Amino acid sequence: MAEEAAVRAQAEAVRRLKQDKTDPDEIAKEVAKLLEMKAQLGGDEGKHKFVLKTPKGTRDYSPKQMAIRERVFNAIITCFKRHGAEVIDTPVFELKETLTGKYGEDSKLIYDLKDQGGELLSLRYDLTVPFARYLAMNKITNIKRYHIAKVYRRDNPAMTRGRYREFYQCDFDIAGQFDPMIPDAECLKIVHEILSDLQLGDFLVKVNDRRILDGMFAVCGVPDSKFRTICSSVDKLDKMPWEEVKNEMVGEKGLSPEAADRIGEYVQLHGGLELIERLLQDPKLSQNKLAKEGLGDMKLLFEYLTLFGITGKISFDLSLARGLDYYTGVIFEAVLLQQENDHVEEPVSVGSVAGGGRYDGLVGMFDPKGRKVPCVGVSIGIERIFSILEQRVEASEEKIRTTETQVLVASAQKKLLEERLKLIAELWDAGIKAEILYKKNPKLLNQLQYCEDTGIPLVAIVGEQELKDGVVKLRVVATREEVNVRRESLVEEIRMRTSR
Amino acid sequence: MAEEAAVRAQAEAVRRLKQDKTDPDEIAKEVAKLLEMKAQLGGDEGKHKFVLKTPKGTRDYSPKQMAIRERVFNAIITCFKRHGAEVIDTPVFELKETLTGKYGEDSKLIYDLKDQGGELLSLRYDLTVPFARYLAMNKITNIKRYHIAKVYRRDNPAMTRGRYREFYQCDFDIAGQFDPMIPDAECLKIVHEILSDLQLGDFLVKVNDRRILDGMFAVCGVPDSKFRTICSSVDKLDKMPWEEVKNEMVGEKGLSPEAADRIGEYVQLHGGLELIERLLQDPKLSQNKLAKEGLGDMKLLFEYLTLFGITGKISFDLSLARGLDYYTGVIFEAVLLQQENDHVEEPVSVGSVAGGGRYDGLVGMFDPKGRKVPCVGVSIGIERIFSILEQRVEASEEKIRTTETQVLVASAQKKLLEERLKLIAELWDAGIKAEILYKKNPKLLNQLQYCEDTGIPLVAIVGEQELKDGVVKLRVVATREEVNVRRESLVEEIRMRTSR
Repeated sequence: MAEEAAVRAQAEAVRRLKQDKTDPDEIAKEVAKLLEMKAQLGGDEGKHKFVLKTPKGTRDYSPKQMAIRERVFNAIITCFKRHGAEVIDTPVFELKETLTGKYGEDSKLIYDLKDQGGELLSLRYDLTVPFARYLAMNKITNIKRYHIAKVYRRDNPAMTRGRYREFYQCDFDIAGQFDPMIPDAECLKIVHEILSDLQLGDFLVKVNDRRILDGMFAVCGVPDSKFRTICSSVDKLDKMPWEEVKNEMVGEKGLSPEAADRIGEYVQLHGGLELIERLLQDPKLSQNKLAKEGLGDMKLLFEYLTLFGITGKISFDLSLARGLDYYTGVIFEAVLLQQENDHVEEPVSVGSVAGGGRYDGLVGMFDPKGRKVPCVGVSIGIERIFSILEQRVEASEEKIRTTETQVLVASAQKKLLEERLKLIAELWDAGIKAEILYKKNPKLLNQLQYCEDTGIPLVAIVGEQELKDGVVKLRVVATREEVNVRRESLVEEIRMRTSR
Repeated sequence: MAEEAAVRAQAEAVRRLKQDKTDPDEIAKEVAKLLEMKAQLGGDEGKHKFVLKTPKGTRDYSPKQMAIRERVFNAIITCFKRHGAEVIDTPVFELKETLTGKYGEDSKLIYDLKDQGGELLSLRYDLTVPFARYLAMNKITNIKRYHIAKVYRRDNPAMTRGRYREFYQCDFDIAGQFDPMIPDAECLKIVHEILSDLQLGDFLVKVNDRRILDGMFAVCGVPDSKFRTICSSVDKLDKMPWEEVKNEMVGEKGLSPEAADRIGEYVQLHGGLELIERLLQDPKLSQNKLAKEGLGDMKLLFEYLTLFGITGKISFDLSLARGLDYYTGVIFEAVLLQQENDHVEEPVSVGSVAGGGRYDGLVGMFDPKGRKVPCVGVSIGIERIFSILEQRVEASEEKIRTTETQVLVASAQKKLLEERLKLIAELWDAGIKAEILYKKNPKLLNQLQYCEDTGIPLVAIVGEQELKDGVVKLRVVATREEVNVRRESLVEEIRMRTSR
């Protein structure tokens, strides 16, 4: 209990320290006292009490998982670059007020930082709001950029389904005043390219437009003030049956049952160009300005998607709503239709793997004069994709290398550490990826085993005889073939044998 | 003021909501009310009041800055991979207790998250403690890994000198029980390779050992309990003259003036193998077990560094202390000796650009049974390096491309948007990096200007005549040369002309 008393004394000292921080000498003395106290407490007691884990909803990535992650990132970045995107980065936290009022009902999921004096900060919830803040702050009216970074949501994690509290978003956005639907069509092309490239199995991209939704709400008799909250209810249709959604609209949100039923009829509809044509003739919708605009643009979008040759996997779907407040036009979401990896016993159940839309008002919310910069963008849900690929790798027993080492510098006899160090430095300096075992006298068998385990294809063996002859024995791990290579040709020989 | 009242009402509603969160229906109703209230308030009023900035000590990276950053990352990652490192990733925050008691006096700089229910969390302060937690949690006793990620310190930012509150660390560490000084020497080789590779100008790597420091403190008459705090004072010698450091030791930390003077004599010493030999004969130091061990290993280290051919830039320096608590053996720090870019009017003043050392006890602090995993590692201070390179690019007026686009799909006449879309989809599907302007009828001059501005080397021009002839006109932006290429050969032609 001496320990407890000391801890209390320490806490008290810290409190004093906080109260009186005018005199730096005073502070330094207090700190010194605290450190002494800590030293007296003994560093060893009570230090194994804590829980050894990562925070709820987060995880580490092992080297093997990183190798899979890098593959997915590469596919995505290659696509973004193919479409001419630049890349930016923003801080992981923003001023709290920057995020305020952008996420509707989801705002409660934002992580705040503790007030330790100074500014009030929150972890970013997505990459879109920081992007809009960046554009307004730098008065940029025209940019095509991607941004790959972690975002944070205090949501209920479902880690086996790839839902985390810390997760990567891979965003591509086009900002600027352009002719309608050309950038929007490119975003859908990008989703199509990435999902095809990653070979995740069959997928479908649902498309809708906030203006069509709002027009639909209006003609169904939803009061203006309830548009966003009713939109949130519609957004739940992919997880809940219509009856439950209707109950929420009527019971919780106070919508009339008749209005809800009228919505219920529309949200069943999905199709392609012919559905758009039909709705353009719909006696009620065609009278609503917003819906008409939205449907007109939807038609144009489908024409462009036809030119891109991707309409086969795109569905205009009136039940698609998307949760976020900031969308103003086209919205879309990609879902996987089934798992290709049927041989896995418990297939990963995944929902949406990409989503996005047009948000023409968001930048204006940050501009002192409210100047608008129209934007449209797509976000790839990497964690869910990653879950699928990880399971697939597990199932296939594919061996994934986690290093790129070309050659292990080894020796068959003792007392050759110095020679190994000299040789490996030569290789490193020539740009060869090389390793040694950190032992003075490792056994040759252990060195060869290390190559087997880690997939290193070549071994460069130095021995007394080789040193005398000015050669190095190069062994091919897979075939056990061994050749003597003159030392001055070794780099070239390794390059030749490891380039494919 | 109606607005203010509404805001107050809203705040009140939120408070009620928090108090009574037993009934989900009740919550949903409250949320709906709040949203209605917000809608009535009008989205447009009062929204431009906030400050448009990133949090103190943080910054955005523009596409141009990202291009420079990627170059530096590439050089570093290439080096880490050359040395056979795997890569891992950990969450940006850890349980608060994971970070507690690891950073000595610097603990006050840790960012805590707000207690929003659930676990108490802190942003990571470095990548070393999360690495140790990862090893202990996964019972890994043997790994060579790198980790490149942002860390967070509530320090006084000095952004022009590259000191931020959010900044990248690029860490390479070797964990495992090995023969002495081999991994330690490799870490120094890595620092040497990276700093040479980046061509930042002349540099020096100072090396010392915590055991030598502790032995020195003991023979100088510093009480055991003051070792760490006196070590912190010594650490300030690169920023403060000896007299001030001595004042801190004596005045603030209660060391005797005689002990301080004895320390003062030792910390002036720096050199190479001959200094190590001399100190091994030092009548006081040679009697101290710790110092002797440290000096013996330092000698071995310098022998290995000689084999690596890098002793020219390495200095054994008794004034090097390093701030962090967790080091137990070799420590080192690389500093730039002078700026190469003398033509810049205000050269960036940078301090240490890399540092690291051995921390054999850290993993054991996390292991339930206190099992130790010896570790040694290096951290590259990317932000300072980046500051220098950014200034150098500015000064040299080097034009940095921020995209990799190979070709712009353009048209000379109106009404060819559909043809441009068809052609660009063909190019994208063949893996060509291509852009179009998002206009129905862009002027040819604007399209060519876009290429000039962004460095796109080729333009593929479609026109009525070309369409009839089944060709595309390919224009080389730099030379204005134009050739007609058959449509089916276009992809090959673009590849050929843009591969170098």
